[in-house]
Parts: sequence; structure tokens; C-alpha cells
Amino acid sequence: MAPTLNPSAMATGLSGHSDHPETNVLRLRPLGIDTYQEPVIYMSADCPICRSEGWEALTRLQVALGDRVIVATLNVVTGDLLAPDEASLSDAAWRLLGAAPGDDVVVSSMPPLESLSAVRAKVYGHALSAPALTAIVRDVAAGRYAAIELAAFVTACAGDRLDEAETIALTRAMIDVGDRLDWPRAPVVDKHSVGGLPGNRTTMLVVPIVASCGLLMPKTSSRAITSPAGTADAMETVAPVDLSLDAMRRVVEQEGGCIVWGGAVRLSPADDAIIRVERPLDLDSEGQLVASVLSKKAAAGSTHVVIDIPVGPTAKVRSAETARRLGDRLVRVGAAVGLVVDIMPGDGTQPIGRGIGPALEARDVLAVLRNDAEAPADLRARALVLAGRVLELGGRVPEGEGLALARRHLERGGAWRKFVAICEAQGGLREPPRAAYTREIVATRSGRVDAIDNRRLARAAKLAGAPRSPAAGLVLHAPTGRHVSIGQPVFTLHAESPGELAYAALYVEANPDIVAIGADEAQP
Amino acid sequence: MAPTLNPSAMATGLSGHSDHPETNVLRLRPLGIDTYQEPVIYMSADCPICRSEGWEALTRLQVALGDRVIVATLNVVTGDLLAPDEASLSDAAWRLLGAAPGDDVVVSSMPPLESLSAVRAKVYGHALSAPALTAIVRDVAAGRYAAIELAAFVTACAGDRLDEAETIALTRAMIDVGDRLDWPRAPVVDKHSVGGLPGNRTTMLVVPIVASCGLLMPKTSSRAITSPAGTADAMETVAPVDLSLDAMRRVVEQEGGCIVWGGAVRLSPADDAIIRVERPLDLDSEGQLVASVLSKKAAAGSTHVVIDIPVGPTAKVRSAETARRLGDRLVRVGAAVGLVVDIMPGDGTQPIGRGIGPALEARDVLAVLRNDAEAPADLRARALVLAGRVLELGGRVPEGEGLALARRHLERGGAWRKFVAICEAQGGLREPPRAAYTREIVATRSGRVDAIDNRRLARAAKLAGAPRSPAAGLVLHAPTGRHVSIGQPVFTLHAESPGELAYAALYVEANPDIVAIGADEAQP
Repeated sequence: MAPTLNPSAMATGLSGHSDHPETNVLRLRPLGIDTYQEPVIYMSADCPICRSEGWEALTRLQVALGDRVIVATLNVVTGDLLAPDEASLSDAAWRLLGAAPGDDVVVSSMPPLESLSAVRAKVYGHALSAPALTAIVRDVAAGRYAAIELAAFVTACAGDRLDEAETIALTRAMIDVGDRLDWPRAPVVDKHSVGGLPGNRTTMLVVPIVASCGLLMPKTSSRAITSPAGTADAMETVAPVDLSLDAMRRVVEQEGGCIVWGGAVRLSPADDAIIRVERPLDLDSEGQLVASVLSKKAAAGSTHVVIDIPVGPTAKVRSAETARRLGDRLVRVGAAVGLVVDIMPGDGTQPIGRGIGPALEARDVLAVLRNDAEAPADLRARALVLAGRVLELGGRVPEGEGLALARRHLERGGAWRKFVAICEAQGGLREPPRAAYTREIVATRSGRVDAIDNRRLARAAKLAGAPRSPAAGLVLHAPTGRHVSIGQPVFTLHAESPGELAYAALYVEANPDIVAIGADEAQP
Repeated sequence: MAPTLNPSAMATGLSGHSDHPETNVLRLRPLGIDTYQEPVIYMSADCPICRSEGWEALTRLQVALGDRVIVATLNVVTGDLLAPDEASLSDAAWRLLGAAPGDDVVVSSMPPLESLSAVRAKVYGHALSAPALTAIVRDVAAGRYAAIELAAFVTACAGDRLDEAETIALTRAMIDVGDRLDWPRAPVVDKHSVGGLPGNRTTMLVVPIVASCGLLMPKTSSRAITSPAGTADAMETVAPVDLSLDAMRRVVEQEGGCIVWGGAVRLSPADDAIIRVERPLDLDSEGQLVASVLSKKAAAGSTHVVIDIPVGPTAKVRSAETARRLGDRLVRVGAAVGLVVDIMPGDGTQPIGRGIGPALEARDVLAVLRNDAEAPADLRARALVLAGRVLELGGRVPEGEGLALARRHLERGGAWRKFVAICEAQGGLREPPRAAYTREIVATRSGRVDAIDNRRLARAAKLAGAPRSPAAGLVLHAPTGRHVSIGQPVFTLHAESPGELAYAALYVEANPDIVAIGADEAQP
């Protein structure tokens, strides 16, 4: 059976849009509509292109301006906001296209998204091949996936549904689709903490310690996915993190280290798009986590990476067994893409530091760097251990001598001076903002703090506005093991609006055992 | 460990939105933006409520007008389209709220969507309990799920990921959340074809045959999910299908049968919302299919249901084994919710009838009902067998006598008269529309048609505009087994716009083996 069909030569001459793109031109008029990161194009219901192409609201379209092409969702203007030959864009689409009012854009249908067939096959239980993952990642990075299509992909890969081969292929695809940095000297070290532990802002300490010891540590961090703050969110409250690749390179060449937002340098554009859907869905995937972490390290030009995995019943990783499996996978996938990976499991039973939320976590970091007497000892200790391991893995000192070197550089002010220099190089050091609204949550009985539910504590901080409102979150006053008296503050909620403070307080009222206080034996 | 925390009595008195909803009032101003079925609320970036509540673009909000409440997605107007105390709505949101310009709406935050935790647990491999499914279905029916959340739910249930207990619970939840009809007499019969076979419009024949024989058959049909036409789409080209419950009841009481759109009578509002996401994702779930079919039958008040499962390599059900498993599940879940279900597997190797697309399929139906000599024999035969089985299952005739009775009523014009009467009662019989643009696809060699790829044929019809453009689709001239000569038409594409015709033609050019023609032995 061979190919046997052809459109009849007798058919009237028809031209698809691709043959005559110049006919699909619309003039841009500003409307000023913010749809967050979602590109939307507005066209009049009377637009002749809409009519001849059969486009309706929610059709996905390609919009081109010069050599820039984005994919946008169509909203049809049925009123008189736009003339038939005009179009408008959501704020995100104006930015992505670099468009100005009066510009002419070319609008065309999106070709069928072939890589979605592989996503569907995965949903039905088939494995994803390396070419399929490459095609998916390329389409996702180019913005061709609609939000519901991204949601289907994220859901199909959630939990442990990606095996090792798929994870390696996904990691490679994510590296290949973005920019990749190279550095004049090696080793290039890095560290990463697997999330889920509120307040775990060791990166902002490890980078200045390690850089002050002379190793190259160009750190790209992420914003929060499901937590109240990512490192990029916390760092942004003390210095700009939204640096271009060139600007980042200048900082690293000058200071030996940086702490910037990975999304701004677009080292892993597909990962950024995936995270935008993962965050509101609050879904995690081991394979995507590994690919996300390692692709960013490899793309940043790292050669040696220490990965911190906090383990605790309410941390992201809940058991030593899961940590071991995740650690093994990180090491093996790392090796497959040319990275030396070292795993450090840690205590994840309670938050590190006191603050939870971008600015509040940054304050803890500043206290440690300044060697304040009040600085959180747990955050300091964890950062020193990690920095010590990075110094050893990177060959700066022999095994067993990293911790002492790290401590020396912190205590003698070298790390603080390096942090200030890095912040200045990134655009200027600033004080983290303070919340306009706070509310103390007090103990209603005396006793010892028995347990802290990290997940619900994080939820309270998020309801208070973190990470969107940088000053929002909470400050924990009583860690596990501490004795509190009735009426004594256990934590303080911080918010930038009264509404958010009220939501968070309502949630805490409904969940009074977020911090569990054991009965005081001395009490009646 | 007992509850031990309370918001401090010393905290300043704060009031959440729920205590003072009257402060969150905005006046509606029309903008005329069509976002298909997605409710969107537009508010000014300078709106004091937005600011105090910390809302940003894409926040999901409750919008109330009188006692109607909808959930809408926030788009923030950064330009001057809206004053700070004004809001606007997408066209769908105006409709859902029944709002008019100048109305005051109350806007508030959406409470946390607790049922999403169960969806997440399902994604991670846990089973869904009956209470969890009830909560999910209730939230979905109320429009509380965002599109990406629906996409996660659909993906988590796709393929065979819902077991029998989950399927029964989902079916019950879907029945409970919608309206339910009851009828003055029993039995109430119904039939359903599991989709995937283009042109399978037997319902429009079975209903008038069975009703003309005196059984009660109140049929609610769906629109296309992933196919080029659903029965409701095809029926709509000859009569209104968008009837209220009361209107549907009047038609059935008068004529003994009807063919209306199930979504309009809201018998299964959750299912309608799920289908809006399933369709663009092109994902199917056995459990959701069973729940969707049976919940609509039970809600429509049916007692006896015949289910037609076409089996073929490119039909929705590809093997006899899958058909048997699906059939068993339909029978057992049906019994659990009080339905007598009978399964009829059928030939699904090629399209039934000639037309594919709403109007083209309706034309086939009209030809059969009018006993035209040119009417498609396969569609006629299949409809008669199904109608006969319904007549037997409903107790109208003993086993073995249904087919003869059905044939008599069709041949003597009783079915046609009943169809006309039903259409008139539904609002008036009309002629299906004709496409403005057509294109013949001809054989490039002579030979016998060996195989037809239903899926790709359906895709071509969809690219031509079906089901959105009712006249679009294609007409097949050469069924399997037919001999065609070189240059003879194999099928004709129909479209309402030149752009869509061109897309469909391009697709056919790229897939010349949609209809495979075997080499002619007589040819050199």
C-alpha cells in the first residue's frame, strides 16, 4: 500500500496563511491588560483575518514582530475597544515581543503541536524517548504549550513517573535548549538545597564564604515553586537578581561568585515555564526535580556540585530511604551529563533560621554574615558544613579541613565583605523591607515545643502573602525543644495587607497544632 | 499534644473580607471581551480592594451578584479602561452571572480548594475515596477549578487509572451534583455509542424509531469531545438542542422522545466542565467515560440502556478485549447506580455513513429516515439493530422480534414522521447548512480500498473546521472494499473558510495513506 491521495488538480487555487503571511498584518494598540506571564492577543470580532481563518476565543496563535515570534491565546473583543485592523496584547506579550504601540504584527495559526502526542502516550503509561523529550522541551521553551498542556505534562511526570533514562534525557534536553555558560577557570563549584524546608537560606551564606576562599561559584537560584520563598526571592530583597548573562558574567569575573535569578539569564527556559504551572498545582516530580536542578548547574558551567537534602516528616523529603534514592539518582544523572555530584543529607525536622518569607529569611542571613550574637545558630552551622564540603569537593582544601576554613572566613568578616561586594556588583546592597502589618501568635499553655509542621507553617506564610509580597511571612520564636510559657509569642505573622494578615491568622486559628506544645509537667 | 495556639488577644482588630463583604463592591462596566467559556474579571491596578487584598493577575476570585456566585480569574487593567471602583467581566462571566452594565458585584477571595489535595494524592498514586470524589465533583461543577487544575485531574484519571470503586463513586457524585429527571412511566430506555467512530449518528435514528413504537426515550446527547461531531452537534443542524429542562420535558411528554444537548439541561455540570479540558488535551479516561455516560443516563431518569461499542484498529476501542473490559465495567457500574445496561459490540473498522462533521452526518440521517435509495446502508443497518435491541430490552417485544418491528417503523415512514414531530416540538425542523468551500481528494492510482484510518480521517475533518463550523467536515465516497479508478474522488473536504480548507488539504497531502488503496492487479 503506497501513498495514493493528492488534492485534486481541479480544486480552486487556495492559499494557506503560510504562503501569504503579509496579508495577516494587524496594527498594535495598547489596552493595558495584565495577565501575569500569559501572552494574550486581543483581536476584534470584526477582524477579517479572524473570520477567514475561523479563529475563535482561546485559539492559540503565532504573533511575529520582526524576527521575534511568540505564541499567544486569542481573546476576541466584541465591543469597540479595537478596530477590525487592530490588535492588542497583554502586558506579558508586549514585553516578550519587545513591541511598541503602532507596530505591525503578523498573526498566523500555530502548526499542530506534534510533541503533545508523546505527552499523551506518557499519560497512558508509555515511556518518553529522548527525541520525544527533546521535542517537548523545545516546544515548552518556545512557549508553544498552553497552560493546560503544561499541566498535563507536569501531572504525567509527577511523583516517580520518570525513570532514570527519561530523567537523563530530560536533563540533557533542558541543557540543550537554553544558553550555556563557560568560565575561564575550573573547577566551577555549586551547591543546591532540595526545597521544602522553610528558611533554608544557606546559599546566600555558602556563596560568599566559598568565593572569599578563592573558588569560582556562579550561582543561579530559582524563585519559590511551592515554598514561601526561593533563594532568588530572598536575595532580591537585598540586591537585584534579575541580571542579564553579560551582567552576571561581569559580577563573577570580578568577585568570583554571584547569586542571581536563573530565570532572568534563561539558562533553562523550559524549566521556568514548567515551574509556572507546577507552583499553582503544588505538584512535584522527582524526575523533573533532578532535571531542573542538574540542567541549571550544567548550563551555568558548574563542574562540582554539593546537594543538601534535608530529611524530616514534614520536609519535602520525608524519609532517609527517599533521600538515598533521590541522592543516588542525582549522582548518576549528574555523571551522565558530566557533573561531579556529592550528596549531604541533613536534619529537616524543623525550619532553619527564624524567618520564613523573602525579607525575613534575608534578615537571618545578614545576621549570620555580620556575626550578630542573635544570629540563628542552626542556619550558621548548616551553612558552614555545606561551605566546608564545597571547599573540599572543589579541591581548595583536603578532606576534613573545609569546615575550619569556612568558619575562619565567616568569623573574620571575609564572607561579609565578599557578600557586600557581590551585592554591589549585582546593582547595590539594600535593606530588606519590613511588613506593615504583624500579628503575634501566642502559646495558650506552658510547655515544651514538641514538633513543628513545616508544611502548614509554610502554608501560613504563603497565606500571609509570601513570596509575592516580599516582606510577608512569619518569624518563629520557639524552635523544637524550647520551653514556652502561656501567653508567650510562638511566632509572628508578617503581611503587607490587612486582608492577607487576616487570612493567615484564620488559617492558624483553624490549625492550632502547627507548633505542638507538650503539657508542662509542673502545671496542674 | 492538644491545640495550643490562638491569635493573640493583643493583636489589632482585623476583619477578613467575609466579615465585611459590603466593602468589596465594584460597579460593572462593559468591555466586550470574549474568552470562550472562561470567566474573567477585569479590575483596575488602582483598585483599592486589589491593593488591600494583595490580589494580582490570575488570582481566582469569587464574584457575587445577588445570590449568584461565580469564580473568575483576575486580569488587571493597567491602562485607563476602568476606574478604580469599576470592574468588567468576560462575555462568559456576564452570562453566568446574568449581570447588566451598572450592576454592583461583590468580589472576594476564594477559600482554599481543599478537594485539590485529593487530586494531588491521586497524581501520586493513591486511590480517590468516595467523599473525595464527591468534593471534587462539587467544586468542579461550581466552577471552582481553574483550567490547569482540571487538566491535572483529567490527566491523573486518564487511561485506566480509575478502578471500579472509584468509577462507581465518580458516577454517583456526578449524578448527585446535577439535576435529575423523573418520568411518569417506566421503562425509560436509552442508547449510547462509545465514540471514536466518525459518522456514527445512530442515535438520531434510534430515538424516532423507538419513540414511534411507543417506548419513552428522552435522549440527552453530548457535543464532540475529541471527534469531529457529537450527536448534539449534528442534531443542532436540523433543530434546536439547547432546551431547558422544562422544554425538554414538554417535548418528551408530547412525543415520547427527544434529542437534546445534555449540557444545556445541566444534568451533569461537572462532566461538562471536564469535557472542556479533555477536548483540547485529547485525553480519554475509561473511568471518566463510564461515569460520564452512566451519570447522564441516570440523571435523565433512564432505567434500561443499550450501549454500542464499535471495535476497530483505529476506533476509540481497538480490541475485542478492551471492549469486553469496558462493557463489563459499564454493566457493573450501571448496576451499582440502578441501571440495566446491555452491551452491543460492533464493527468499528470504518466510518458509518458517508458524512463526517455535524451537518454532513445529519444529511446521512435524513436520507435514512426518508428511505432515500441513496441512503447509507451501513448506518441504516446499524441503527435498526440497535433500535431492535432497545425495543427488546425495554420489554416492547420479546427477544428476537425487535429488529423486525424497528424495520417496519422505519420503512413505513413512522420513524420519519416521529423525527419531524420531535424536531418541531424542539423548536422547528431546518435543513443542515452547506459549506461554502469544498475540495475533492482523488485517487492517484486505481485499486481496491484496503483500509481507512478513522483517527486521521477525523483529524482532517477537524482541521476543516468540524465541529465548530457546523457545515465543515468531509464526505467519504469510497468505503473499504470499493474499487476506485485513478482520478476518481475518494472523499470531499468541506469548510466554511478558505484557511481551514487549506489546512485540511495540507494535512491530507502529508498523510496520503489515510485511505489506503491496494494495487490493482489488472494494472501494469
